Amino acid sequence: MSLIVQKYGGTSVADVDRIRNVARRVATTYDQGNDVVVILSAMAGVTDGLITLARQATQQPDKRELDALLATGEQTTSALLAMTLISMNYPAQSLLGFQAEVLTDCVYGNARIVDIRTERIGELLANRNIIVIAGFQGCDPNGNITTLGRGGSDTSAVAIAAALKADSCEIYTDVDGIYTADPNICSKARKIDVISYDEMLNMASLGAKVLQIRSVGFAKKFNVPVHVRSSFSEEEGTMVVAENNGMESLVVSAVTHDKNQARITLKKVPDQPGVAAKIFTPLAEAGIVVDMIIQNTRVQGQTDLTFTVPQAEFAQALKIQERVAAEIGAEDVFGDQNIAKVSVIGVGMKNHSGVASTMFTNLARENINIMLISTSEIRISCVIEEKYTELAVRVLHTAFGLDRT
Amino acid sequence: MSLIVQKYGGTSVADVDRIRNVARRVATTYDQGNDVVVILSAMAGVTDGLITLARQATQQPDKRELDALLATGEQTTSALLAMTLISMNYPAQSLLGFQAEVLTDCVYGNARIVDIRTERIGELLANRNIIVIAGFQGCDPNGNITTLGRGGSDTSAVAIAAALKADSCEIYTDVDGIYTADPNICSKARKIDVISYDEMLNMASLGAKVLQIRSVGFAKKFNVPVHVRSSFSEEEGTMVVAENNGMESLVVSAVTHDKNQARITLKKVPDQPGVAAKIFTPLAEAGIVVDMIIQNTRVQGQTDLTFTVPQAEFAQALKIQERVAAEIGAEDVFGDQNIAKVSVIGVGMKNHSGVASTMFTNLARENINIMLISTSEIRISCVIEEKYTELAVRVLHTAFGLDRT
Repeated sequence: MSLIVQKYGGTSVADVDRIRNVARRVATTYDQGNDVVVILSAMAGVTDGLITLARQATQQPDKRELDALLATGEQTTSALLAMTLISMNYPAQSLLGFQAEVLTDCVYGNARIVDIRTERIGELLANRNIIVIAGFQGCDPNGNITTLGRGGSDTSAVAIAAALKADSCEIYTDVDGIYTADPNICSKARKIDVISYDEMLNMASLGAKVLQIRSVGFAKKFNVPVHVRSSFSEEEGTMVVAENNGMESLVVSAVTHDKNQARITLKKVPDQPGVAAKIFTPLAEAGIVVDMIIQNTRVQGQTDLTFTVPQAEFAQALKIQERVAAEIGAEDVFGDQNIAKVSVIGVGMKNHSGVASTMFTNLARENINIMLISTSEIRISCVIEEKYTELAVRVLHTAFGLDRT
Repeated sequence: MSLIVQKYGGTSVADVDRIRNVARRVATTYDQGNDVVVILSAMAGVTDGLITLARQATQQPDKRELDALLATGEQTTSALLAMTLISMNYPAQSLLGFQAEVLTDCVYGNARIVDIRTERIGELLANRNIIVIAGFQGCDPNGNITTLGRGGSDTSAVAIAAALKADSCEIYTDVDGIYTADPNICSKARKIDVISYDEMLNMASLGAKVLQIRSVGFAKKFNVPVHVRSSFSEEEGTMVVAENNGMESLVVSAVTHDKNQARITLKKVPDQPGVAAKIFTPLAEAGIVVDMIIQNTRVQGQTDLTFTVPQAEFAQALKIQERVAAEIGAEDVFGDQNIAKVSVIGVGMKNHSGVASTMFTNLARENINIMLISTSEIRISCVIEEKYTELAVRVLHTAFGLDRT
């Protein structure tokens, strides 16, 4: 008998029929003799609908109140799943964040899980109950409702699996696993059977939308094996696990791309202490996340500085930098939204030289100009013109031997 | 400075515009220097929609899970009102049932308030916060979400007003007060300025849908003056208060009717100890509320027994009684759904004879046959053929001097 945590995403609980489908899956797992804890998202589209409703009330909804509003989405699906299971004669009970004692800090809208007290869950499991927990939500020390940010139900699932020392954590979604590249633009993409936490962390931040990045960090920290799979088929998906030797057969595991990027360049920035802070502090204060930062070699006490931001915040970031440029005496500020980031990822590249060289050579062969480069231990990313995105992904996918045969 | 509890019903918070209207009313009360606690219902139609959703999942939803589902309705409106007030620069905070510590028993779907711990509310009020509490919901000693039954937000409001020793409890709805009769069928009906708890208790149970009956009982028990008024106008509504001398000027305060009635008669029931229990216990077990019960004089050890039930439960009740009749040896069982109950209500009738006589005489003059009669200290009810309902109400309204001049 195992303890299995299953998380179902918004498309898997999009209506009553799909909730019934989820109930059948849960029941099957239970009938096999397992203890089951289910974590649910809101119905697909519901969270966005609630945000729209809040925005109708006020352009800038108070964050505490917005969290109380958004939490209703998961409350709805978890009650519906529990009553469906009960109608099928399974002993089930739904728990909200505060009832499951998912304790968080007080950062509304993006709270972090501090502790999960498992006594109540443990008692219910001991009596062979199926527990259905509303994902995405927790409560702070004062009993205020908090939410964990976009995709937070993944984090709920992994954190609860870690707290319960579950044997496995299954993330059910509408795709059947993690792919070596986006199948929509690379027809030869293959499903990955096993991937490491670190590779997944790099995938997530680069645009693979299957798992919330914070949940992967949690899984890594507590060594929770995560099985990403489809709720619409019986096939095995992708296991996200700690790095092991078997993974090193491939140098590169996946090619990802991200078109949601924009570039801002400051020309001839005086290269003095404190200038970088003057450039990036106002962006941080505006809540704008800067991704890549590249600073050219200093020439005559001046340097060019380029960075990327999400496209949605491009206009705001550019405006801020125009002010900054005047202040610090930079010569010019310009931006570009027609860019994309293409990355190759793989724990194998730690022990292999020549990955960067292969990447650059193959892009050059197609006359794709590289604007920016950044690297980590297991990732190389290039910013290129947006129009070459699909071509670049396909070329690299072939070059690193990932094509399906 | 007063402490004012305001409750807004479903039509008053039916959309974001109306919630904004509520926010303005609340703000005005606050600006006058008052402390304000607001209790909200769900948006009109939302609770019914959630019940429909639950029924799609399963015909008989588990009551605990249904309560968790239904509670989202009031959670939504209270978060929306609080964020609207905050956007208007008022310090507001929403509280759910468990946060406001509205403690109830464990009877899901129809829970009773056991206690309201007011420390948190008191602290927030001391800091001049406007508190928005989700009505209709509470939590049991184990932290499970409970709901208080149809119209339960009225009870939330009165109970919270009682616990806080509020100076007044205003119930905002889509009508401008309590009327001497339903204005839809009696054009001469007048708004009542002041009515006693006891009269209101009789009104509510007889079909006046303005206030949940349990809330009136609560108001009476804790002597909370309740002001029923419209959220769409500035006019004073109806005060529901303890009985006082000024009320006795009118013998009858109102004429009410209820078409949602059905009658079941058992013919020739053996008149033995224990028979009544055999008839009514199975109804109670099926959760069917019996209203009037009339037993004729015994003739040759047998008696006829008639009672009324809500129309929705007529078929079920009739089925149960067919079984009971066979068991106890009654001669026949029959029922009738084309009936209505018409009542006259007034604390004044305690000290006046002849009210019944006036009622019967006036109905007889219109050839309206009376099938059943029941009386209380301040009420006389007659069951008549349904088709005469409107005529009966108008005739009695005129006969007891209630017509608007």
